[in-house]
Amino acid sequence: MAAEPVNDAPWRLLDDVRLGEGVVIHSFTSLYGCSIGDETRVGAFVEIQRGAAIGARCKISSHSFVCEGVTIEDEVFVGHGVVFINDRHPRATTEAGAPKGKDDWVLERTHVGRGASIGSGATILGGVTIGPRALVGAGAVVTRDVPAGEVAVGNPARLLPREAHRPTAPLPSS
Amino acid sequence: MAAEPVNDAPWRLLDDVRLGEGVVIHSFTSLYGCSIGDETRVGAFVEIQRGAAIGARCKISSHSFVCEGVTIEDEVFVGHGVVFINDRHPRATTEAGAPKGKDDWVLERTHVGRGASIGSGATILGGVTIGPRALVGAGAVVTRDVPAGEVAVGNPARLLPREAHRPTAPLPSS
Amino acid sequence: MAAEPVNDAPWRLLDDVRLGEGVVIHSFTSLYGCSIGDETRVGAFVEIQRGAAIGARCKISSHSFVCEGVTIEDEVFVGHGVVFINDRHPRATTEAGAPKGKDDWVLERTHVGRGASIGSGATILGGVTIGPRALVGAGAVVTRDVPAGEVAVGNPARLLPREAHRPTAPLPSS
Repeated sequence: MAAEPVNDAPWRLLDDVRLGEGVVIHSFTSLYGCSIGDETRVGAFVEIQRGAAIGARCKISSHSFVCEGVTIEDEVFVGHGVVFINDRHPRATTEAGAPKGKDDWVLERTHVGRGASIGSGATILGGVTIGPRALVGAGAVVTRDVPAGEVAVGNPARLLPREAHRPTAPLPSS
Repeated sequence: MAAEPVNDAPWRLLDDVRLGEGVVIHSFTSLYGCSIGDETRVGAFVEIQRGAAIGARCKISSHSFVCEGVTIEDEVFVGHGVVFINDRHPRATTEAGAPKGKDDWVLERTHVGRGASIGSGATILGGVTIGPRALVGAGAVVTRDVPAGEVAVGNPARLLPREAHRPTAPLPSS
Repeated sequence: MAAEPVNDAPWRLLDDVRLGEGVVIHSFTSLYGCSIGDETRVGAFVEIQRGAAIGARCKISSHSFVCEGVTIEDEVFVGHGVVFINDRHPRATTEAGAPKGKDDWVLERTHVGRGASIGSGATILGGVTIGPRALVGAGAVVTRDVPAGEVAVGNPARLLPREAHRPTAPLPSS
């Protein structure tokens, strides 16, 4: 396992990150306490938190936030400006008014299956499972599970009927 | 009042910022001409503009933008990728085609009450008041006021009926 | 044509960028292989990709992403946290499981006409044309063309009826 990403971009924070072979991490990124699989690419302005696990051959595009409790399998596309969430009841402080600490909330875990794609601008609530090869549309707000191979769009996200799915590869020109 | 944030992260721009005691400001941030209350935490990739005022014990999460004209009271949670707006008629240039200057638009002020929470990915239009302990759902686009203690979700945001509110604290395990 | 932006902010990546006169580019930005017209201003945390072309007197606000294949005419306002898209079928890998390369996808071009405004938090799908002086509302997800002078809001974005348009300039006080 390579100790360093293969590129050499300036202005990155990499603290206690377990990196696979051939990982590319761009500038203006903050990764800490997470693992990144082989050949995965991480864009600019990305934060990946402690406890997040990202598989091999993924693309985590610019401006995205991957929080603690998120597991992303291999070959997943995460678009630009995607936000994951792990707290169903976010508050700045406890009921007593003290800043919340690590024991003052419940982590809700999110799982993204192999080969899924999450469109740019999507927001993924905590506790959600996105199945293998599922597709989350751009700008969708995902509040419930998306089964394998399904397509979810809108706010809140709804599954598209199967006949409305766009093909997963471009049609050949006629 | 402490002159410097308590942590010592690299790559920050702090220009003419009034900081309370125990403020934590992460890397890759740009704050200028604003005030930040005691023990407030500011995540990576955050910009806070001149004239914005943020209270004590708040959390301003990564990738958020707080513009001029926004006042945030104490103990407010601002999620990741939240965008505030202060201009109802944004244009790059005046009708005459010159780049807009500071006298070419009308500032619309936004107020967020004590203990409110704004979910990740939310967009808050200018001129809006979000009441104390109100909750803005993840990905909501808030175009009108949210009264104290209410929950607003969707695009455009609508108030949830009271019986649909999620509890503000996790239920005890049974 | 000036070789350097007029300001001198730290922590910027400018690689093979064609800059007009009087361009202002803030810190924490990554621009490569693109062109930026005279007097255009680019905010913090912005990435502009190779092959993007931005006109004169535009404002590209903080946290926005402008991808390859996007052409923005003069005097366009792009709000904060706006994401453009150029791939209708985003996947991390080819069907064979290899990371996608430059020949493994179809670029869909987007065109934004002169004087248009794109509200903060909007997501613009690939292959879309936004006409001159059109207005995209904050948080909108634009999946189809927006004709000149029209206003599109929502997810997915719909055109507002003409009588519902907000005026493009503030009403005089009465």
